[in-house]
Parts: sequence; C-alpha cells; structure tokens
Amino acid sequence: MFTAVASADTLSKTLDPVGTLVDECRIHLDAEGLRISAMDPATVGVVELALDREAFESYEADGGVVGVDVERLDSVVGMANSDDLVHLELDEETRQLRIRVGGLEYTLALVDPDAIRAEPDLDALELPASAVVEGRQFDQAIRAAEMVSTHVAVGVDESGENLYVDAEGDVDTVHYELDDDDLVDLEVAPAHSLFSLDYLADMNRVVPTDAELTLELGEEYPMRLSYVYADGSGEVLYFLAPRIQSR
Amino acid sequence: MFTAVASADTLSKTLDPVGTLVDECRIHLDAEGLRISAMDPATVGVVELALDREAFESYEADGGVVGVDVERLDSVVGMANSDDLVHLELDEETRQLRIRVGGLEYTLALVDPDAIRAEPDLDALELPASAVVEGRQFDQAIRAAEMVSTHVAVGVDESGENLYVDAEGDVDTVHYELDDDDLVDLEVAPAHSLFSLDYLADMNRVVPTDAELTLELGEEYPMRLSYVYADGSGEVLYFLAPRIQSR
Amino acid sequence: MFTAVASADTLSKTLDPVGTLVDECRIHLDAEGLRISAMDPATVGVVELALDREAFESYEADGGVVGVDVERLDSVVGMANSDDLVHLELDEETRQLRIRVGGLEYTLALVDPDAIRAEPDLDALELPASAVVEGRQFDQAIRAAEMVSTHVAVGVDESGENLYVDAEGDVDTVHYELDDDDLVDLEVAPAHSLFSLDYLADMNRVVPTDAELTLELGEEYPMRLSYVYADGSGEVLYFLAPRIQSR
Repeated sequence: MFTAVASADTLSKTLDPVGTLVDECRIHLDAEGLRISAMDPATVGVVELALDREAFESYEADGGVVGVDVERLDSVVGMANSDDLVHLELDEETRQLRIRVGGLEYTLALVDPDAIRAEPDLDALELPASAVVEGRQFDQAIRAAEMVSTHVAVGVDESGENLYVDAEGDVDTVHYELDDDDLVDLEVAPAHSLFSLDYLADMNRVVPTDAELTLELGEEYPMRLSYVYADGSGEVLYFLAPRIQSR
Repeated sequence: MFTAVASADTLSKTLDPVGTLVDECRIHLDAEGLRISAMDPATVGVVELALDREAFESYEADGGVVGVDVERLDSVVGMANSDDLVHLELDEETRQLRIRVGGLEYTLALVDPDAIRAEPDLDALELPASAVVEGRQFDQAIRAAEMVSTHVAVGVDESGENLYVDAEGDVDTVHYELDDDDLVDLEVAPAHSLFSLDYLADMNRVVPTDAELTLELGEEYPMRLSYVYADGSGEVLYFLAPRIQSR
Repeated sequence: MFTAVASADTLSKTLDPVGTLVDECRIHLDAEGLRISAMDPATVGVVELALDREAFESYEADGGVVGVDVERLDSVVGMANSDDLVHLELDEETRQLRIRVGGLEYTLALVDPDAIRAEPDLDALELPASAVVEGRQFDQAIRAAEMVSTHVAVGVDESGENLYVDAEGDVDTVHYELDDDDLVDLEVAPAHSLFSLDYLADMNRVVPTDAELTLELGEEYPMRLSYVYADGSGEVLYFLAPRIQSR
C-alpha cells in the first residue's frame, strides 16, 4: 500500500540525483519515508537518498519496494509546475504507479525490482577530512576544472588549512582553493584523491546552488558528498570512488 | 489596393496558426479585414482565420487576393518588437508586399495565388459536444499525451460529465480529465474520436496559454478548435480530421 | 611585469571583439593600458582595441607583449559573474598568465608572440562620410539583411540625407534607412560600398545594443566601425574591407 502527495519540486529534487547514475532504481516505500540506493553500472558512483514523510503533504506506506524508470517518472513530475501537488498511488495488482497532477493522470508501468541491479552494500568508511562548501562554489570549481582536464585532485592542505580542487591540462592548470573564511566548515586532516570529472560534473548539475554541500575525504579514498533538501526532510548522499593515481 | 498598419504581435498571432499547416497561403484583403483559409497537404487539418479591420491601427483594402510565403512573412514581422507597428503596403504592379518597421523596409515578393493549393470547401458540420478549456490546460494534456503515444482519443464522458483526453502507450497511459468545475464551459453530448498528436502538438504551440479554447466534438467526427485574439478582433478556427479507429 | 585587476565584464568586452576575427592575438601591456591589434586570416577585417588603465581597479605594466589564445582567455573570464573582479598576473619566467577570481586560479599558458600573425599596418585613411547609430539599430539592419543576402551595400544618400543599408536577395530586398532624426549624428558625403555580411554579423554580435556606433564610409572604400565601452576607457575600432562590386 502506498499513497502520497508532495510538491513537484520535492519529487524532482529526489529523482534528479538518482538519474545522474542509473536508468532504473528500486524505491523503498517505508512507513517513515522513501529510500533509494543505487550504484552506476561502472561501480564508480553510489547514491543514497532518503525523503522523510515530513516532506509530503500526506504519506502512507507499509514497506513495499517498487522498481521505476527514473527518467520517465522524472519527466512526468517535470510536467507539473514546481509548486503543484503531485499525487502518487501504487496499484499493487497491476504493478502500476498512478501519478495525478490537476486533471492529468499518468499511469506508469513499474519495473520488476528483481530485474534491477542489486543495491550497493557499502562498508562503513572513516573519512578523516571534511569541508562544507556552497553549491555555487562547488559549481565554479568543477566548471573551471572541466576546461582543462577530465579528472581532478580534491584534497585538504594541512599547512594552508584549505580545501583545494586541482586540475592539470596539457598546458593550462586550474587551482581552486577555499580556506576557513570562505568555507561554511572545515575539518583538517590528510586528504588527497583523484576523481573523474564526468561523475563530478553530473553530480554538480543536480546540487542546488544554494545548498550547503559536505565533502568528506581521505588519502586515495572515496569522496562522500552530501546535502539536504526539502527543508531538511530529504538527504542526498553520493559516494565516488577515486581514480588510481598514475605516478 | 491594400495598406495597413498593425502591431507586430497581432500579425504574428495571425501568421503563426497558418504556418503550422502550410508553407504558402492566400490572404483575402477584404474591405472588412483579412481572411485566410488553408488545408495542409495531407488534408488532415484546416485553418480558417479572420482578422477584422478593428485590429489594425489603419486599414484600407478593396477585395484583392495575395499569395504569400507564410514563414518568410512571419520572420520579417518577427524582426520587430511585439508592440512595434508594422506597415504593410501592396504594390500591385510589381506584385510585392512592402513591409516597413521603423527604418527597415522589407520588400517581399508575392506568390501567384493560382499556384497555391486550392482553399478547402468545408461542408457545414454539426458537432454536438463542446468544451471551453484554458490554453494552458490544453497544453498540459497534449504534452502529457506526447510522452506515451502519437495519437489521442478526445471525447466527452456523458455519465461523468467531463472532457477527456486519453493516450495509450506500450506500457504507460495518460488520462486527462476536466469536469464542469475545471472548464470554462461544457456541452455534454456523445463524443469520442481519435486524433493525430503531430497536428494537435503543432496547433498547441500557437494557442496562447491564456486563451479560451473551444473544442467541438462528435462521434468519430472531426474536431473544431477555435479561439479569439487581438481583443476579439481576430479568430482562429482549426478543423482536424479524425484518425480511423483500429478495432 | 604585469599585474592588473578589472571586472569580468570589462575584460569580456575587450576580448569578445578580438575573438570575432582571430584565434590568437598579441596584447601590448603598455604603462598606460592594454592595446590589441589583429587582422583576420583572410585580411578582410581588422580590429584595433585599447583599454586604458583607468578601466582597471589596479594596473601595473612596463611595456611587454604577450600572446594569448583569445577564446580560452575569454572562457576563463566568462566563468566569473560580470561584476566579479578578475586578477591577472604575468609570470615572465614560465610565460604563464595567472588569472584569479575568488578561490579560483587558472594558469594560462601563453603563446609565443612571434608565432602569431603579424599585426596589420594600416595606412591612414580619409573616410568622408560618417553616421552614429545605436547598437540596436545596427543590429536590426544587419539581421534583416541576413534574411535575403550574404552581402550588403552601406552608404549615405546625399540628396535624402540619410544612411542606408541595402541587401538584395533572389526575390526579396531589404532597405534600411536612418535619417538625421533617427541618427545620433550624420556627416553627409559621397559613400557607397559593398561588404560581407559574415563579418558584419560577427561584429554586430559583440556591439552592445546601447552603444553609440560610429560608421565611417567612402566610395568603394573600407568601413570603419568604432564604439567606446567601460565608461569611455575602452575603445573598439573595426576596419572592414569592401567587396569588389560586380557590375
């Protein structure tokens, strides 16, 4: 059983981050809210997303799991204006999700959850360094890095006490640096890893420019990127595997 | 003889609906205003358009007919800002239309009216059901339907007393429904016909979102779509032939 | 030695006009400001640009010359918001230009000035006629002309006392005419020359719509187009060679 009503904006902000990594995903319809966990086919990026029942106008669920075509559901939600209310209702018999916005009812065929790639099983990971940046700072760093390279080094400079993003092109280089004054928060510890810009650019596209984005880092370790949305009732968590450093 | 002055906006709203169906059209320069009637090459859609002399700043005509390249004339008008005044003057000797906006004079070569496809001769058609919807409601229905199919069923549900637009995809379906409360007006009668979304989507593109669009329908009958513009001095009337229903 | 700070907007308005003609250019870092002079590979268009030190927040230079990839430098500057301050610093040893905006530092490899096409050496040219038009008038004339042809005649009508732009298509023609009342200024003298619309359209794209653009003309002579920017501290000067008139 699942029926829920939420603003189109909240649902878009829930689906967009998932769509950067996978075409289809499982949605866990828990009593306390939605949960999505997915890993991209190349096993480089993972997204874990939770949207509490508080983010909804109304919400009723009893623990089922549905499989959806993320882009398709996102397009249907995208038909509404951002503050329109979207009604969702699961028809368990026909395995369809009924989506209503005003006079429009879209019946979305669900995907068999067993036919969707297994959800990632992440080991708990201690990431010693962390920094909280604004979405628009992250955006500037990523876009500048894209001008010269396909990957970046992200790390924390312990002596300078700053977060940096470095990209090296054939002739040009980009160095982006934010210290304590520029950052919302900074936890200094040894951290330096290389990441693919393809993934970071896709993730950057969905991070709201006014979001506070927490980056957690280590030495040649994955990066954890997280931010909240929907007035704190939603949380997006990305894990991104590092590239092997060529020495 | 023909000279006229109108706002660029009014002229664009006159040419756009014609351009969705044909490349070239005849314009009747009657004493009381302009008249255009055209049918698309596949004989599926017809547009009938009238723009009264009241819509013009000044207007003088004595019943001639000119043939024009619709897109070209529309582009010239589109060069002006929407509230700029556009001066039109027919040079009967050279068969050219002189179009002036500010310091710009564009001389448009006319097309021989006899070289343009004959105008449609429509039988009077009784369409029992009708509904008046807002342009933005029509837009939402058409765009949703396009997500799943290439054609739609449009009809009136006599028991539910509502207008509906139905589209069936391979796996997903769209049902759009507007009842008395949502509609500006509704005349209930048996009506259900299938239409091509290609045509409806093109027509939808030119219907202003704030227009009141009247749909007239029957059982496997053409649909008549009409709305006024230019403060009521202009009227657009579309006829769209139904698709044969596959049973 | 060269260090300077200017708004991103001022730097963009300096680089855009150069980028319409060449990929790489020399920048003269004079004590009194920047100077750029470049001719396109087909030797049809020349741009001469000067940006006085008054246009900068701070400026120090001692007469060096650097070679830059115009589009690349323009893209880096374009990463900033238009009122962000951009810091430029030349590293003479490594032949790199360090560009800083907020936390971002972009290191741009310079191009050997000797590897860049020699700067044009223009003879002083007496152009008897001139007209001062608004950027948006020039824009309208050029865009209308592009609808019918690939070249235009620009001239001054001595009897009518107006500036005109004429384009002749296969069937349609465009005549754009501005007289004393429409123009900021007009100096009447014999002037009529043919120019490539490719070049004029590119130049038009960078002329601000609110700029006062001075056109200087003669009989089958080059046209000089000039305007100031950055509150008068910057000046762009284009020379455009005429096309040979086919008679």
